[in-house]
Amino acid sequence: MTGPGAARPGGRTARTRAAVRQATLAELGEKGYEGLTVEAVALRSGVHKTTVYRRWGSVAGLAADALAIAGDEAWPIPDTGTLEGDLRELARLVVTGFTDPEAGPIATAFVLASARDPVAAKALHAFFAARHEQSAVLVTRAAGRGELPAGTDAAEVVRCAVAPIYYRLFVTGEPISEAVADRAAAAAVAAARAGVFQTPP
Amino acid sequence: MTGPGAARPGGRTARTRAAVRQATLAELGEKGYEGLTVEAVALRSGVHKTTVYRRWGSVAGLAADALAIAGDEAWPIPDTGTLEGDLRELARLVVTGFTDPEAGPIATAFVLASARDPVAAKALHAFFAARHEQSAVLVTRAAGRGELPAGTDAAEVVRCAVAPIYYRLFVTGEPISEAVADRAAAAAVAAARAGVFQTPP
Repeated sequence: MTGPGAARPGGRTARTRAAVRQATLAELGEKGYEGLTVEAVALRSGVHKTTVYRRWGSVAGLAADALAIAGDEAWPIPDTGTLEGDLRELARLVVTGFTDPEAGPIATAFVLASARDPVAAKALHAFFAARHEQSAVLVTRAAGRGELPAGTDAAEVVRCAVAPIYYRLFVTGEPISEAVADRAAAAAVAAARAGVFQTPP
Repeated sequence: MTGPGAARPGGRTARTRAAVRQATLAELGEKGYEGLTVEAVALRSGVHKTTVYRRWGSVAGLAADALAIAGDEAWPIPDTGTLEGDLRELARLVVTGFTDPEAGPIATAFVLASARDPVAAKALHAFFAARHEQSAVLVTRAAGRGELPAGTDAAEVVRCAVAPIYYRLFVTGEPISEAVADRAAAAAVAAARAGVFQTPP
């Protein structure tokens, strides 16, 4: 495999990739996806423009690679002792991620990038698949405590616990808050307990 | 009030507005929001370009006005006799609206427009506020049948029943289907019955 994904950790290629990624995140945070340019990322990272073009291709490639690295990072998986507590923390993390003055604009830019470009959309899809998979442990633990019916689909529980936050953010344009997160988490727990997310045997 | 909203039904202004709106929808369906131009809408509607610019201002104004008219239209409110049946129909309508070969690209274009332009975002916000309000009757009926606890927030029930569809469409890039709609509806019912959406007294 060639391209940014082939970077060896610690090598010169990996350092270049990290620098370009940092510059991409900073530019996305300041100017959004619409304001992202290969030139500005090259200037900010100190990597030559032709190198950035050759290896990342476009702003969509830059956003996709920054997302790919984010997807590889471990997610802080809550362990509060109850499913509702865990999902509430998870949903609050989403709210914090989008309302934080520094991280918020970057997270928003990633979603908007995926709305405009198939390369970024594929990266965002992979990012969420990884997040859903990592969160399966919450549901496994809850099932082990007898909180949930057997065969509950973990990803479905997580989708239900976060979807209302994204719906407000990117569709209806309604405000989000900790209360919104808590209600979404409570809804996911009630639905999961009622067996709504059981997979057919 | 001036601008497109001041059109009297049946008058020349109203006919112009309807023609421009039809042309906007057709262009959105064929070319998406990114491909929408004032010139093409003017040409297609037979309304002079300078008139379109004067009254709608920009492509965002065109999309916002088309949405405003859509928000005024009555939504087919299901009446199946059970809350789950009603919400299932509602959620399936959303899935159909986005997967339909003709209506789907237009609905998608509206959401993407709102991601890029504050004028369109405001119109989409008003559109969903109207939809949520119209759907309150489902919950009132269900409460009347004794299916739901008193003080259940109707808009919250509806948000929960449709949010997972939008989350898959515009965030994770996962497929939607009737099964996705049915599960979201079932989750909303379970959560509503458990009292998750009761407003504080």
